Amino acid sequence: MPKGKAVVLLSGGLDSATALAIAKSEGFELNALTVFYGQRHAAEVEASRAVAKFFGVENHREFPIDLTQFGGSALTADDIAVPKDRLPDQMADGIPVTYVPARNTVFLSLALAWAEVLGAFDIFVGVNALDYSGYPDCRPEYIDAFEKLANLATKAGVEGTGHFNIHAPLIDLTKAQIVQRGVELGVDYGITLSCYDPNTESNRACGHCDSCQLRSRGFAEAGIPDPTPYHGN
Amino acid sequence: MPKGKAVVLLSGGLDSATALAIAKSEGFELNALTVFYGQRHAAEVEASRAVAKFFGVENHREFPIDLTQFGGSALTADDIAVPKDRLPDQMADGIPVTYVPARNTVFLSLALAWAEVLGAFDIFVGVNALDYSGYPDCRPEYIDAFEKLANLATKAGVEGTGHFNIHAPLIDLTKAQIVQRGVELGVDYGITLSCYDPNTESNRACGHCDSCQLRSRGFAEAGIPDPTPYHGN
Repeated sequence: MPKGKAVVLLSGGLDSATALAIAKSEGFELNALTVFYGQRHAAEVEASRAVAKFFGVENHREFPIDLTQFGGSALTADDIAVPKDRLPDQMADGIPVTYVPARNTVFLSLALAWAEVLGAFDIFVGVNALDYSGYPDCRPEYIDAFEKLANLATKAGVEGTGHFNIHAPLIDLTKAQIVQRGVELGVDYGITLSCYDPNTESNRACGHCDSCQLRSRGFAEAGIPDPTPYHGN
Repeated sequence: MPKGKAVVLLSGGLDSATALAIAKSEGFELNALTVFYGQRHAAEVEASRAVAKFFGVENHREFPIDLTQFGGSALTADDIAVPKDRLPDQMADGIPVTYVPARNTVFLSLALAWAEVLGAFDIFVGVNALDYSGYPDCRPEYIDAFEKLANLATKAGVEGTGHFNIHAPLIDLTKAQIVQRGVELGVDYGITLSCYDPNTESNRACGHCDSCQLRSRGFAEAGIPDPTPYHGN
């Protein structure tokens, strides 16, 4: 039984691919939005297209927005290096330089804009607040605040013709639980890319950044072989 | 006495020019952000540059983002006409087709992203909820919700190293009061452009859309001659 339209933020990474699989399993009509915002463009294009195709998403929008204009993050500025081979304790220590200022707010606002035009009231985002990089805009209280904002910001929210729901189905799962859930739903993680610093020639994951390490440990803890094609392997 | 850095959303229209003048009068170091999002590109570039120059803004960022990809508004879709010569009663009747889905949320999220990189905690936006077009994202409760979100979304908000303030200094002013305030602060409204449908050759205001009419009535009610160079005049 179709539930109506959903907009799913799809980076092509492990988390967003799982969020997409969950939205699909719940019966939503899928509209995927991939926001290209910085330096990892080519690798992300490839992964997000592969994931959208894998799930049969007909409406996949690729939206470029140049956050390198602002910089301020290892993901949007050339002069800030992506940290490599950090231990779990080091990762737990504060907000890292890979944090992109207000990124999820920009992404969710674009998802909201598109959702309002589509008549979609359900927005899925693959943030999680357990095995994550310590980003402020991945926490439950942030998602709740955005949902409140969405319903004040929009025509339908004001006219009472609909209520926006921001779904963050991974928010309280560990990376291992996310992997398990995705595998149950048939996600092929071999086509996803979670890396902060993919190799520019192979478009493959580096295997050493926080994101690669969290992902790799997630597979190990879930007891599932890691299908990620790392660079150099 | 300088108050620190502010990011001011500057469209080049009457309201945002006044908000910029107010931020300047309060002693903030001005950083102006102009988001080009759709069809009125050329005319807005011209007006926003003129206003930034007028106020001596050194850091003026022009940020393109293609909301025509989503459409859904007379300002972002070719197949939706901008209403002309509507009477005040007609304007008061619901949210008009010039409403751009989630526009102010997209703009404020970009302003927040830049502010966080700059170390600015004050964001100015020229929305007003009296003589306006009935947009949901111009209301005080919307601005309050965004301020809450901003402080949850960001590194400084989480670490307690700063508090973001969203300033909407025009929010409870009539258009006439805005004009009066701006004139007191020395704003040259002749270089601003508030039109929803400027002529593509002259880049001048049409004089007939809701925005032109609200603006024109504002000058009349303030008893100040309207300096706007309308197309065909």
